[in-house]
Amino acid sequence: MKLKKKDLLGIEGLEKEEIELILSTAASFKEVSTREIKKVPTLRGKTVINLFYEPSTRTRTSFEIAAKRMSADAINISVASSSVKKGETLRDTALNLEAMNPDCVVIRHSSSGAPHMIARHLKSSVINAGDGAHEHPSQALLDMFTVKERLGGLSGVRLLIVGDIAHSRVARSNILGFTKMGASVTVCGPPTMMPEGISAMGCSVSHDMEALLKDADVIMMLRVQLERQKEALFPSVREYSRLYGLDAGKLRKARKDALILHPGPINRGVEISPEVADGPWSLILEQVTNGVAVRMALFYLLIGGVKE
Amino acid sequence: MKLKKKDLLGIEGLEKEEIELILSTAASFKEVSTREIKKVPTLRGKTVINLFYEPSTRTRTSFEIAAKRMSADAINISVASSSVKKGETLRDTALNLEAMNPDCVVIRHSSSGAPHMIARHLKSSVINAGDGAHEHPSQALLDMFTVKERLGGLSGVRLLIVGDIAHSRVARSNILGFTKMGASVTVCGPPTMMPEGISAMGCSVSHDMEALLKDADVIMMLRVQLERQKEALFPSVREYSRLYGLDAGKLRKARKDALILHPGPINRGVEISPEVADGPWSLILEQVTNGVAVRMALFYLLIGGVKE
Amino acid sequence: MKLKKKDLLGIEGLEKEEIELILSTAASFKEVSTREIKKVPTLRGKTVINLFYEPSTRTRTSFEIAAKRMSADAINISVASSSVKKGETLRDTALNLEAMNPDCVVIRHSSSGAPHMIARHLKSSVINAGDGAHEHPSQALLDMFTVKERLGGLSGVRLLIVGDIAHSRVARSNILGFTKMGASVTVCGPPTMMPEGISAMGCSVSHDMEALLKDADVIMMLRVQLERQKEALFPSVREYSRLYGLDAGKLRKARKDALILHPGPINRGVEISPEVADGPWSLILEQVTNGVAVRMALFYLLIGGVKE
Repeated sequence: MKLKKKDLLGIEGLEKEEIELILSTAASFKEVSTREIKKVPTLRGKTVINLFYEPSTRTRTSFEIAAKRMSADAINISVASSSVKKGETLRDTALNLEAMNPDCVVIRHSSSGAPHMIARHLKSSVINAGDGAHEHPSQALLDMFTVKERLGGLSGVRLLIVGDIAHSRVARSNILGFTKMGASVTVCGPPTMMPEGISAMGCSVSHDMEALLKDADVIMMLRVQLERQKEALFPSVREYSRLYGLDAGKLRKARKDALILHPGPINRGVEISPEVADGPWSLILEQVTNGVAVRMALFYLLIGGVKE
Repeated sequence: MKLKKKDLLGIEGLEKEEIELILSTAASFKEVSTREIKKVPTLRGKTVINLFYEPSTRTRTSFEIAAKRMSADAINISVASSSVKKGETLRDTALNLEAMNPDCVVIRHSSSGAPHMIARHLKSSVINAGDGAHEHPSQALLDMFTVKERLGGLSGVRLLIVGDIAHSRVARSNILGFTKMGASVTVCGPPTMMPEGISAMGCSVSHDMEALLKDADVIMMLRVQLERQKEALFPSVREYSRLYGLDAGKLRKARKDALILHPGPINRGVEISPEVADGPWSLILEQVTNGVAVRMALFYLLIGGVKE
Repeated sequence: MKLKKKDLLGIEGLEKEEIELILSTAASFKEVSTREIKKVPTLRGKTVINLFYEPSTRTRTSFEIAAKRMSADAINISVASSSVKKGETLRDTALNLEAMNPDCVVIRHSSSGAPHMIARHLKSSVINAGDGAHEHPSQALLDMFTVKERLGGLSGVRLLIVGDIAHSRVARSNILGFTKMGASVTVCGPPTMMPEGISAMGCSVSHDMEALLKDADVIMMLRVQLERQKEALFPSVREYSRLYGLDAGKLRKARKDALILHPGPINRGVEISPEVADGPWSLILEQVTNGVAVRMALFYLLIGGVKE
């Protein structure tokens, strides 16, 4: 079975059944990374290009490892060493890469919609690895995978997302994904970090974190982008941390078995305290492990097997 | 059959028969990149080092993909993250790489002759991936391949090259290559961009682009290096574009079946207009596809098979 | 047979028998890099991450080639393009990488002890590829390998190390290694470059290079880090070179068969003159060749075969 789409551009365009297919496929690939020989021949002779216009360790590494464990050839291109500097348009860069017959182009770009634009021009599959403040679908899929693996399913799950909702592609993709799967999502953060019309996405909105904690099955803390502080979206890091950071004190108001997620990299002592990040209900590293499995599944479903 | 040389340093040192061998070998490798499994075991256990002292997306990626599709191990070294900063000479860097037993070193360098210098010191094969304003032989080979594939041969073909001839290693390698294969080459560009003694290379020279168009079978537009404008080689981009850019208006003066080449990356609206770049006679993306095939052929002919 | 340790963090923690095991294993792997097909399947399906917080061409390339020749998947992460910038702690970066199930993390870091810290947190093997001014064990192992291969053994060998002893992880690891193997080590350099208490490491100390030369079987010249000159550790490069550089004149005072080592990259005309570096007793390039063999041995001994 394969995805009917050529590309994975966002959670927005996915059917519930497609998400279920991705998650169940990821479950079968997760085991590969625990073997002595972490390699399957599935994508031998396929070419994956990681085209990163923003720096990234974990996401690029996760896609690269996923590709290599499936025996694909992985080619990394980062913006710093690229002809983007020479003024070529993104479309021309993409068409030029396509001309080298890759099977999949994984793209991260600071502009929302960049992956969608290039996907329209390419016959190759395109995976959005994060576009501006828009979507980061493989992150949301790995988050859903992680929760489903622990709780058995997503329907009825109560997810609380805390942080800079307005600027977070992780939040956006997760709101879309979890609500699609029947979970209920509440978002929480400073008013300056809450986009207008967010409730139209099907989630509840609140600014009072402490009141929300007791009803959450899953608490997803977003990264504070400290570089945004000069935009004065919040008065101080200490103030942010006091109101919207998750520490042992706040955690006592949550359910005892609430799961804690964070897309990483974490700012210890800012949005999450060390004892929470390293505590028994934190799934932060499990998310990273699952990320490789989800990306293997995406490669398999998009470019695996014989083309139809 | 193999090349009798250890290295590919320029078109200058190649015999006509060697060029024919490379082009016919590339033709047989082109098909590999269209397979479901784009991989042949030919260079398994060979090590290719891409040593790039200038940034490049397309050329480095093309060599890397070519190496991997032939099952070679490809190692990328870019100047930014390299010990060049530590003041080591190019010769010492090359000797140190050689000591790790690579089979081929692909080098791009801003100094003319750099690949030739290191080739003298290494037992490994060296491929010049562009040296200063000197040569870029794999580009000229892919250009010849592209034209031959369309026109059936190169003898008698009339090639017009337009742009900054003086600073273009692409122009230089193509003049050498096409004339060697029996084509006639005319170069055209602003007087400030025309090197002295260029006609000694066996080509005609003119500054009137419009008059030349009707006689060209192939029009090769060179990239305007906008960063050179501060050197005042031309009065303004608009002026350059009006006189030496190829747009739909000028194209009406050319043969209806004239082929259009450009080594990329293109400056849309400067040396080539979008409707020409994307038009039916543009072979720009075909050139990129053929680049992988030509580089596979070069690896095969230089380091493939058992050493004699 | 395997190393009993999970990690290679320094020469300090190694038993003499373990060093012997590494050197004899390297001897058997050296031949692989001379084959037509330089590849063994030993580490197929293993993942090696090269995590470099300092720029490096030769060391990173050597580890990468070693991994690929053993059929492992090699993933490069350099600090410039990494989330380190985003303020993540080294421990969190390491734990995140671990979550992707690598078998070995090779780390270079400017802080002494960084590899040891992450090794405590990871189940994966960790190899120290240089930590601050502390240790560079794979360099010392390849130096010992090179000397042993030439002289038949290390016991009783007289090694002279010349240069900036205080800031050299290469010197430190070599003093530890050679003395452990029964060699006698003398260090020599300007007083400002000699650490206090160095003789406690079991070596002799002198500032008179010329007097020492006649008794040395092996002369190891250290790289002058010219960027340190602003710290005024020596009056001028010329003065340094006159007193502590090895040129043909000084070499006449050494044994005729004295072996000359340098970890590279060399500063020609500073700590070593060109005629010495390129002369018949220089093993500088042989060291580089042996580096690949030693790193193959390390991968084999740490992560090769079935886990026990």
